[in-house]
Amino acid sequence: MTKITAAITGVQGYVPEYVLTNEELEKTIETTDEWIVTRTGIKERHILKGEGLGTSVMGAEAVRGLLKKTNTQPEEIDLLICATVTPDYFFPSTANLICDKVGISNIASFDIAAACSGFINALTTGAMFIESGRYKKIIVVGADKMSAIVDYTDRTTCVLFGDGAGAVLLEPSTDGNGLQDFILKSDGSGANHLIQPAGGSAYPPTHETIDAKQHFIYQEGPSVFKFAVTRMADVSAEIMERNNLTGEDIAFLVPHQANKRIIDATANRMGVGAEKVMLNIHKYGNTTAATIPLCLWDYESQLKKGDNLILAAFGGGFTWGSVYLKWAI
Amino acid sequence: MTKITAAITGVQGYVPEYVLTNEELEKTIETTDEWIVTRTGIKERHILKGEGLGTSVMGAEAVRGLLKKTNTQPEEIDLLICATVTPDYFFPSTANLICDKVGISNIASFDIAAACSGFINALTTGAMFIESGRYKKIIVVGADKMSAIVDYTDRTTCVLFGDGAGAVLLEPSTDGNGLQDFILKSDGSGANHLIQPAGGSAYPPTHETIDAKQHFIYQEGPSVFKFAVTRMADVSAEIMERNNLTGEDIAFLVPHQANKRIIDATANRMGVGAEKVMLNIHKYGNTTAATIPLCLWDYESQLKKGDNLILAAFGGGFTWGSVYLKWAI
Repeated sequence: MTKITAAITGVQGYVPEYVLTNEELEKTIETTDEWIVTRTGIKERHILKGEGLGTSVMGAEAVRGLLKKTNTQPEEIDLLICATVTPDYFFPSTANLICDKVGISNIASFDIAAACSGFINALTTGAMFIESGRYKKIIVVGADKMSAIVDYTDRTTCVLFGDGAGAVLLEPSTDGNGLQDFILKSDGSGANHLIQPAGGSAYPPTHETIDAKQHFIYQEGPSVFKFAVTRMADVSAEIMERNNLTGEDIAFLVPHQANKRIIDATANRMGVGAEKVMLNIHKYGNTTAATIPLCLWDYESQLKKGDNLILAAFGGGFTWGSVYLKWAI
Repeated sequence: MTKITAAITGVQGYVPEYVLTNEELEKTIETTDEWIVTRTGIKERHILKGEGLGTSVMGAEAVRGLLKKTNTQPEEIDLLICATVTPDYFFPSTANLICDKVGISNIASFDIAAACSGFINALTTGAMFIESGRYKKIIVVGADKMSAIVDYTDRTTCVLFGDGAGAVLLEPSTDGNGLQDFILKSDGSGANHLIQPAGGSAYPPTHETIDAKQHFIYQEGPSVFKFAVTRMADVSAEIMERNNLTGEDIAFLVPHQANKRIIDATANRMGVGAEKVMLNIHKYGNTTAATIPLCLWDYESQLKKGDNLILAAFGGGFTWGSVYLKWAI
């Protein structure tokens, strides 16, 4: 029996039209383009504007494009997973809403929440449904409308995040390409360092939680940075080691785009030069679950069949991990 | 190569101490015990009381008990998935928090959201990680603190829901027991019939959304009932048919506990007598993602190795589905 692997056979991204530049932020908060670029590498980010428009709007745009690009009919899809920390609602799930917006129904669809590591957790989950032989065509979406939970008066966080969505199509492959290995980790003791404090069942919304701005992202930057830098580098080195890969074997590192310095540290640890690191943080900021599929989308034309990619992420939870895959298209 | 199936090798439940009876509800809203029992079958429900206590508190209790009961060390677990619509926070995920509370770290952990079908989606997902051979010990939790999103002045919904958690241990099996088949479905066109209207990225919390009570469950009872009754019965009949099962082959139907009349209709369609239907709605109400594992927990002593079980659920999204498994312990 030939081993079935789960291969990415299509990728599509979507970012909303409105661009929020560092220059525009300079006008409303005490910051400078130079300060932001030096510390984060971010020049601008896209923001979804419009009353009542949630994450599913962007996810649906990415999925619609993906279906068209891969010449896939909605009724061929077996499962759609959406990774997000900014679902439109607690329920129904954003995956359900995306399906409905693009004309998919009667299939399995659910959301996965694992903060900034959401996409690699969802991708791996989708891959398991393929490897088991149960499903043949799966869409994995990473989408976040971070502007919904950003306090635009807090200059330490509002410069960091943007809105966007990316989606991949997963299909079975028997030619050895596709997902090879993954390492997924979490450590809940880091919960309080990166958290949206209210709005869930621990602290449901009240007038007080709104006045206290507890529905926005709270981040202890230095603690998160410290953890991220070691964990993302460690896990990327570990997956290379256990697959006998050196920096030379890697076509691209596809890192979560939270901070250029964390990315550089990971690449350095992996022995991978800057020319092999996917980077788009300058134009999108941190779009949470969307960063990795947006990277694949932006760099698609540079990828060749059989290329070894290492996907790596770190985020709230803490959660982190790496995925080793061979590009299949 | 012997086929690996994912077997439930342990189950544990937890409900909080405080019991909210129909009699107590009679004192605060215009309702009667008889009205509630006739329409829903519910006599009482358990409620988690205490400032800052979210769903993870109950999930952790269930997991702690499961580890003890199955004599499993925290470090043996490869993955913990929590199905919930009432996560403690949007991030970090409730799975991360449960892990931390019970002394599990450095493993994969994420949340799955698929409303009342959350547990069967999470169980199936966990099973795929086992079937692929990637992981050996997985905990799947279904947990919800519905009291966090229930409007206790709305007599049509507040009688229906309760708080609780259940957890199962999944391990590989080669003796033919464990998960056999599943059908998972969704239809996002039903989104507005059963929804928590605000709090997510579509309608972030504001003073207005709080005053308008938009952070509570909104349900169009008759529409949801109509869909649920046909979809849950259809999907249960379908999974039996494609596995050549008749009512006589089934040891137990394990239905999501939302409404006794929906459960009766499903059992009837399956040709399964009332004595073969797990039922605990009278004492817990609808605990959303926790209903099915709480049923397995309550009925565990009546289950024998090799018993054919059909798990069935329907809920917000809409989402629905059925799982066919052979009891393995």
